[in-house]
Amino acid sequence: MTDTVISSQTREVVIGLERPFVMIGERINPTGRKILAAEMAAGNFSRVESDALAQVAAGAHMLDLNAGIPLADEPAILAKAIQLVQSITDVPLSIDSSIVKALEAGLAVYKGKPLVNSVTGEEERLETVLPLVKKYGAAVVAISNDETGISENPDVRFEVAKKIVQRAADHGIHHSDVVVDPLVMPIGAINHAGRQVMHLLQRLKNELKVNTTCGASNISFGLPAREAINATYLTMAIGAGLTSAIMNPMHLEIVRSCMAADVMMGHDPHCERWIKRFREAPPLQASGAPAEAPPGAVRGRREGGHRRRSQSPPA
Amino acid sequence: MTDTVISSQTREVVIGLERPFVMIGERINPTGRKILAAEMAAGNFSRVESDALAQVAAGAHMLDLNAGIPLADEPAILAKAIQLVQSITDVPLSIDSSIVKALEAGLAVYKGKPLVNSVTGEEERLETVLPLVKKYGAAVVAISNDETGISENPDVRFEVAKKIVQRAADHGIHHSDVVVDPLVMPIGAINHAGRQVMHLLQRLKNELKVNTTCGASNISFGLPAREAINATYLTMAIGAGLTSAIMNPMHLEIVRSCMAADVMMGHDPHCERWIKRFREAPPLQASGAPAEAPPGAVRGRREGGHRRRSQSPPA
Repeated sequence: MTDTVISSQTREVVIGLERPFVMIGERINPTGRKILAAEMAAGNFSRVESDALAQVAAGAHMLDLNAGIPLADEPAILAKAIQLVQSITDVPLSIDSSIVKALEAGLAVYKGKPLVNSVTGEEERLETVLPLVKKYGAAVVAISNDETGISENPDVRFEVAKKIVQRAADHGIHHSDVVVDPLVMPIGAINHAGRQVMHLLQRLKNELKVNTTCGASNISFGLPAREAINATYLTMAIGAGLTSAIMNPMHLEIVRSCMAADVMMGHDPHCERWIKRFREAPPLQASGAPAEAPPGAVRGRREGGHRRRSQSPPA
Repeated sequence: MTDTVISSQTREVVIGLERPFVMIGERINPTGRKILAAEMAAGNFSRVESDALAQVAAGAHMLDLNAGIPLADEPAILAKAIQLVQSITDVPLSIDSSIVKALEAGLAVYKGKPLVNSVTGEEERLETVLPLVKKYGAAVVAISNDETGISENPDVRFEVAKKIVQRAADHGIHHSDVVVDPLVMPIGAINHAGRQVMHLLQRLKNELKVNTTCGASNISFGLPAREAINATYLTMAIGAGLTSAIMNPMHLEIVRSCMAADVMMGHDPHCERWIKRFREAPPLQASGAPAEAPPGAVRGRREGGHRRRSQSPPA
């Protein structure tokens, strides 16, 4: 089985088929968050800080950091956000940008081995992002679209993923450091989007033997009761082979479903984590808000495949 | 794909891989319900009536009826319950008893084509239950245990299921009228129970090509937050091939997860049923209680593969 190791200075997270599912917090992203965007552009990172702590307290094993703000100095803002978040939490990070200079600025300051989010199958992206991933010894999210866009045919998406894995190998990046995003479509628009992605996840698991991630919220775009659709999508996708997701850990229903999927997959021995978290938990709140634990209680927690590092991080 | 048709006088439910998931309400069962048991034994069926209507209102497509009360006249009570429930709702029924005389009494009064719950791989059960199933033109739940008990090895359970399907064929019962229960173990006791049952469901789907059902609550025995485990189990099992379950439709979280699984499997075209039910639904209540619709509004509802019959029921 393929293990993908991501780390901060002091903590390792291992993404793998025989590991607990890895939840990557999606909240630190100014896209669609006007106040956060304005604050980050103005150099105010207080919301970045509180969002980081709240997501870790809610159960996130990693955090995705995006600083995509129009007309702002994205490389500088992303680097600053990374340094700040690494100073207050020990979870490993995903460095998220469509701008190569921002990825590079982030990689330059990151302590540990991050996940670079992302590279696509587009020729220009492959040849600019992969050398950076190799240079910094990172892992990378591979998005299965290319110059022709996102194919509705999952087998075409599989071929794009395969091309990225092969090209990464040409750059000296092992397939265990490529985490494929199969791309999930809104099921309200494409009725077979769920079946498509299950099929693709099974092929990625069995044939390419890579780990996988996805933006979990897209599936429910336009539908009511989105959290229930997202939670069900994630559990079914985990059954098909999904090993991580970029998601909102502030929705208790979704976190709980992922933890229940760990129980079902046999990745929570003696149901220990499940019992610990839910033995005395109140029932799900009407608001869907999580029953928060104090951040301190969580920061030191060790869960399943997520173990503290004893060696120093890679350069 | 194999379709299993179950019917009342006026309604058909079709269990199948390309059909919406069939939820069979489990509540009318005196096991562990002392008040219900005492009332049924005394000839008071008011709770049977209200439980039937409430489960249908909550979304059950079929109801399981069990009258297993120690020292009571189970055949007479079961027959009376069936007649009563068939007089107030049009959903098809599962006739549930471990006593062959009770099954026969129920079959004698049932109007339509019921599901007989159940036959095991035990020789004596095979040779008493299967002739009844054939005589009344019913379908039957096949439980994958035999004289040696319930094997922890899913491949042994598969062989028991295969034997039952073959024996049913010897009695002139088509495999489309055998719905296999793979038997799910409490995951708090057997850590790999989830993987076991997924593996077995895939074999039953791909090799025996039969429909499947299960008692969905057993998986979470002894654990906190049971509904979340049950809901996740069901959605992952649906992904692996489960086509129906005997479950508690009064837990909105579980019904909602099954409906979300239908969306994910492409069995809710244009997400029409999802949108209709949840567009204006309040968020999940802290109690987990369903937002009930008036029974009248639901009794006449037609959902997906569950269509009204135009022809008369089989004899």
